[in-house]
Amino acid sequence: MPSVTVFGAGGYAGALAARLIDRHPWFELAAVTARTDAGRRLDDLYPRHRVPLVLEEPDVERHGDVDAALVAYPHGAAAPLVAALRERGVRVVDLSADFRLGDRAAYEQWYGEHGAPELLGGAAYGLPELHRDEVTGADLVAVPGCYPTATLLALAPLARAGVIADVVVDAKSGVSGAGREATEVTHFVSADENVNPYGVDGHRHSAEIDQELAALGAPVTATFVPHLVPLDQGELVSCYVTPQREIDAAELTELYVDAYCDEPFVELAARPPGVRDVRETNIARISVHVDRRSGRVLAFAAIDNLWKGAASQAVQDLNLMFGRDEGEGIS
Amino acid sequence: MPSVTVFGAGGYAGALAARLIDRHPWFELAAVTARTDAGRRLDDLYPRHRVPLVLEEPDVERHGDVDAALVAYPHGAAAPLVAALRERGVRVVDLSADFRLGDRAAYEQWYGEHGAPELLGGAAYGLPELHRDEVTGADLVAVPGCYPTATLLALAPLARAGVIADVVVDAKSGVSGAGREATEVTHFVSADENVNPYGVDGHRHSAEIDQELAALGAPVTATFVPHLVPLDQGELVSCYVTPQREIDAAELTELYVDAYCDEPFVELAARPPGVRDVRETNIARISVHVDRRSGRVLAFAAIDNLWKGAASQAVQDLNLMFGRDEGEGIS
Amino acid sequence: MPSVTVFGAGGYAGALAARLIDRHPWFELAAVTARTDAGRRLDDLYPRHRVPLVLEEPDVERHGDVDAALVAYPHGAAAPLVAALRERGVRVVDLSADFRLGDRAAYEQWYGEHGAPELLGGAAYGLPELHRDEVTGADLVAVPGCYPTATLLALAPLARAGVIADVVVDAKSGVSGAGREATEVTHFVSADENVNPYGVDGHRHSAEIDQELAALGAPVTATFVPHLVPLDQGELVSCYVTPQREIDAAELTELYVDAYCDEPFVELAARPPGVRDVRETNIARISVHVDRRSGRVLAFAAIDNLWKGAASQAVQDLNLMFGRDEGEGIS
Amino acid sequence: MPSVTVFGAGGYAGALAARLIDRHPWFELAAVTARTDAGRRLDDLYPRHRVPLVLEEPDVERHGDVDAALVAYPHGAAAPLVAALRERGVRVVDLSADFRLGDRAAYEQWYGEHGAPELLGGAAYGLPELHRDEVTGADLVAVPGCYPTATLLALAPLARAGVIADVVVDAKSGVSGAGREATEVTHFVSADENVNPYGVDGHRHSAEIDQELAALGAPVTATFVPHLVPLDQGELVSCYVTPQREIDAAELTELYVDAYCDEPFVELAARPPGVRDVRETNIARISVHVDRRSGRVLAFAAIDNLWKGAASQAVQDLNLMFGRDEGEGIS
Repeated sequence: MPSVTVFGAGGYAGALAARLIDRHPWFELAAVTARTDAGRRLDDLYPRHRVPLVLEEPDVERHGDVDAALVAYPHGAAAPLVAALRERGVRVVDLSADFRLGDRAAYEQWYGEHGAPELLGGAAYGLPELHRDEVTGADLVAVPGCYPTATLLALAPLARAGVIADVVVDAKSGVSGAGREATEVTHFVSADENVNPYGVDGHRHSAEIDQELAALGAPVTATFVPHLVPLDQGELVSCYVTPQREIDAAELTELYVDAYCDEPFVELAARPPGVRDVRETNIARISVHVDRRSGRVLAFAAIDNLWKGAASQAVQDLNLMFGRDEGEGIS
Repeated sequence: MPSVTVFGAGGYAGALAARLIDRHPWFELAAVTARTDAGRRLDDLYPRHRVPLVLEEPDVERHGDVDAALVAYPHGAAAPLVAALRERGVRVVDLSADFRLGDRAAYEQWYGEHGAPELLGGAAYGLPELHRDEVTGADLVAVPGCYPTATLLALAPLARAGVIADVVVDAKSGVSGAGREATEVTHFVSADENVNPYGVDGHRHSAEIDQELAALGAPVTATFVPHLVPLDQGELVSCYVTPQREIDAAELTELYVDAYCDEPFVELAARPPGVRDVRETNIARISVHVDRRSGRVLAFAAIDNLWKGAASQAVQDLNLMFGRDEGEGIS
Repeated sequence: MPSVTVFGAGGYAGALAARLIDRHPWFELAAVTARTDAGRRLDDLYPRHRVPLVLEEPDVERHGDVDAALVAYPHGAAAPLVAALRERGVRVVDLSADFRLGDRAAYEQWYGEHGAPELLGGAAYGLPELHRDEVTGADLVAVPGCYPTATLLALAPLARAGVIADVVVDAKSGVSGAGREATEVTHFVSADENVNPYGVDGHRHSAEIDQELAALGAPVTATFVPHLVPLDQGELVSCYVTPQREIDAAELTELYVDAYCDEPFVELAARPPGVRDVRETNIARISVHVDRRSGRVLAFAAIDNLWKGAASQAVQDLNLMFGRDEGEGIS
Repeated sequence: MPSVTVFGAGGYAGALAARLIDRHPWFELAAVTARTDAGRRLDDLYPRHRVPLVLEEPDVERHGDVDAALVAYPHGAAAPLVAALRERGVRVVDLSADFRLGDRAAYEQWYGEHGAPELLGGAAYGLPELHRDEVTGADLVAVPGCYPTATLLALAPLARAGVIADVVVDAKSGVSGAGREATEVTHFVSADENVNPYGVDGHRHSAEIDQELAALGAPVTATFVPHLVPLDQGELVSCYVTPQREIDAAELTELYVDAYCDEPFVELAARPPGVRDVRETNIARISVHVDRRSGRVLAFAAIDNLWKGAASQAVQDLNLMFGRDEGEGIS
């Protein structure tokens, strides 16, 4: 059984990834690392995950002696670790933004200097429903951001069909999306009974969305605004597409059924999806509609931001990298 | 002191209106009526409101012997009662949709047959910030829907300036907006930890939004989609405007300051508003931004759907109808 | 593979039981029934459970042609169905209260006339941690109520040791505990931002708690008060024990470790448990403390009311009835 | 109009106190101070309160040149400031624990060294319903803790009647009770969908509860355990009283009506109170019951922990200190 270290297992996504690997029938969880919480037991920090390991101070020598690594570091911090791991021949699934953008200038505009530019462009974009071939057998995979995951799955069939003239993406995310750091924003009393737009001056995920939409055939500049909603895990994107041409419900259905009927982790629904429907699953639930009054196409996708938006998608990628069934350990 | 009956005080908006009238320095609460809950004390049904009256079976003769009435009935049911009250010379603030649309055909397309078509067009549209003159001294006022209230306040300065080429309105509402009826949708277990789009086949408030935007100078067909979010009271609209021409932040600020600097119940904020900021107030909190990447204008408005979106706006209207300061009893 | 029908799969506990059976490696889900929702797909009603079956109108002939049945009916309605199933030789796990109390008079005081008194006393009390031998191989098992499950697990070691002179049980339950019926109590707007005691005139689970405490060696009349808290799934009981004699932390720990160290679904924690810790698991998480000031023993237990408090415990019982590992399908 | 400074207006209770003073018809808000947030506008930090002042670095010279001060500091930090203010002749309402306990040894056992022991015993205990005479005209008032406020109001009639042999107090508080500091405990993701007991090794409010119960005639050692529940503002205490003698519902009702029928801020309810019933009010809502099975008396009290449990009670005290109607500015 291939061994896996999860680096950055103190955060929400890393901790969940550790749990998924720990119970995975094929992989073996070798170690979990964390800086701030080194020395604490993971099942003390996250009783729900029931991973009976102690978080260790990360050490590339010691923790890099594995077959694969999941890196759940903040952007910027991930790149050097990923580079060091790759040098040792470790296969890496990176949950940060560091290897999602193929273009260095685009990366540096949003995130600052890149710590391992030589690897840029060498990572597969880990959205298996759109990039399965690249991910299969890859040595380095960049797990998409949670918003791009939901948005791209919602829009891919339209993008490929050349239907998207323009698009507005209004996203709603639970508070776990803001990370484990205790701040004024993540305080219960701030988030409870509230809805708040944020990132209105430009959100980093925009670049990722535009890059991938262009690759799919829709070279647009999406308007993307995320909102914080008072729930724990879950994310909904509401996409408002101005179509290139008139399109009716029957054609829409055909496009989406063609795209997703064989996808194990995409569900097409007649009614708009709710985030409860996908809580703690790797599933993206999607519905698509025509607004008869304006002619716009409405595409909704719901995911669990910590699962399909991060940790379980990382495991889906890891499965493909090792030639396993992509649903192993996450179904 | 003018006497007021609140018809339909068993529902959320009616009950709150009763509380506001009950503590109003100028009006006197004469009676509260309800059908389903007749016989129950209002302060048993809504302890928070502390209105020590018994809900009575409605009787136009008896309860119409007042100076004014607030009617909080479902659409369709309101029109005949309003007509009967007007015939008796009672001044009426109607919280239903029955007198919001000036055009009978538009009304009947969305709501079915109108029960008092002779009064159509005779009501002032009770959004004081946009129709203060018509509301002042009026005998019949139609309180706007909660979504149109927030949307129109968010967009009016742009509409008047001829800036709106097209607009998408993504709205988020707390569960009180779905009314007091206990249903699968309003069950705690359905709404908790969930976000759900609804009304994707066309929401009635669209007609109202389009009618008023056109009157302001923006003859567009807005794309409007509401979402249910897991909170009690509060509503946020996120408006994505495709502008007729390029517009910058400075011009936007000027437009909004000009429009609202003297408005007692509109707050302009530099950061996007949260619904907590306006909880249990008559205030609309608004921010406006330019999305530098796409050039779209982003306009957000947060209100309390039961206050500014219904009951306190009704009292604001009532104040104006009787020549009082519009903030009396709701500041 | 033994076939199983879930009767009453429209409710929360029945639907979850159907999901657990549907994915169980040993049992096969033969059918799901419901009265109100007959004809609806279960995965339309509960998308999360992803059980691709249609709810059928219950028919003992047709749906009783199975090896086992899970009955998730309200008390009173369950007894006749259980009797009919037992007559056909079907092994039954009953989630109602109908077979929990051994004493007919006690039953009828709280629940009214019993529909199958001949079976009273013939059911095993399905709390495996306390009654594993009776449940193993049984033909009829009564799944304990959610409150008794948590309370008895919290108190059993003390009861057996003869330590309990008196006890107060203050319980807090999420709204799913109130069932799927849409009522004033389960409306989001009633439960949100609220905490409410209920059942202060006597809650039916009291009889069950007292019966089982007496059987364990503590013949007390517990004071039991449940409260509704604003969350979906989860239940915490806080037990305040007046001890028969002084007892210290070391002895407490020994009692609980002895009782539970080999139990796969009981966790002992040093700090008080939170209901999040056990969400969507069959686990009871327990901590026990001495209040140094008053000398009282504080015992807390957290469970998921729909899992260990109902559906997953039912499957745990079913496993034992058929001689399987009790954790199969629920770990 | 007497001028008032609020010291510590960056925290939840201080900020709310500032708002209440700012809109008070008799007092004038002179200044608001804060250390961490000095320089920020209060209406930026707390938009809801709409207090258009800048938080200033505290300076006893400058900010102590007022008629009265509200001190909302942590325990320990409050005492020296209160002493300095008293020396200047400023009348003080202190929201900390520093002057609640009359006994220095008791204080130092729970809180450490006292910073102004010469003032101990010189403060009135600011629960007007029980200590109105001492508070009226006082120069220094210690506002009770939120838990003691609810508990003492729930139990006072029984304590005075000599009915309490023993008592268990199970309290549930919203997250604002844990303060504004962003921590692992107050993070939305920790508190949401959770219920957690805390302080099981002894909570400081125990000493205060026991001191006051003894003064009322019930020299008991209460067992007190608080729990965190997933809501913003609100607190419920469930008191389980072992009575000295049998007592029936009629006698209970008489005791409570006698005690509270003239109290403007106490409501007696037939059904158990919910915290929603008192949200954002100075009201304590109380119900009392006999558990017929065990004979215990159940007394429940719901308050808003930030209002009656802190800021509005402080203003109620301030009103009495200055001979005003105690409800001014908080009704």
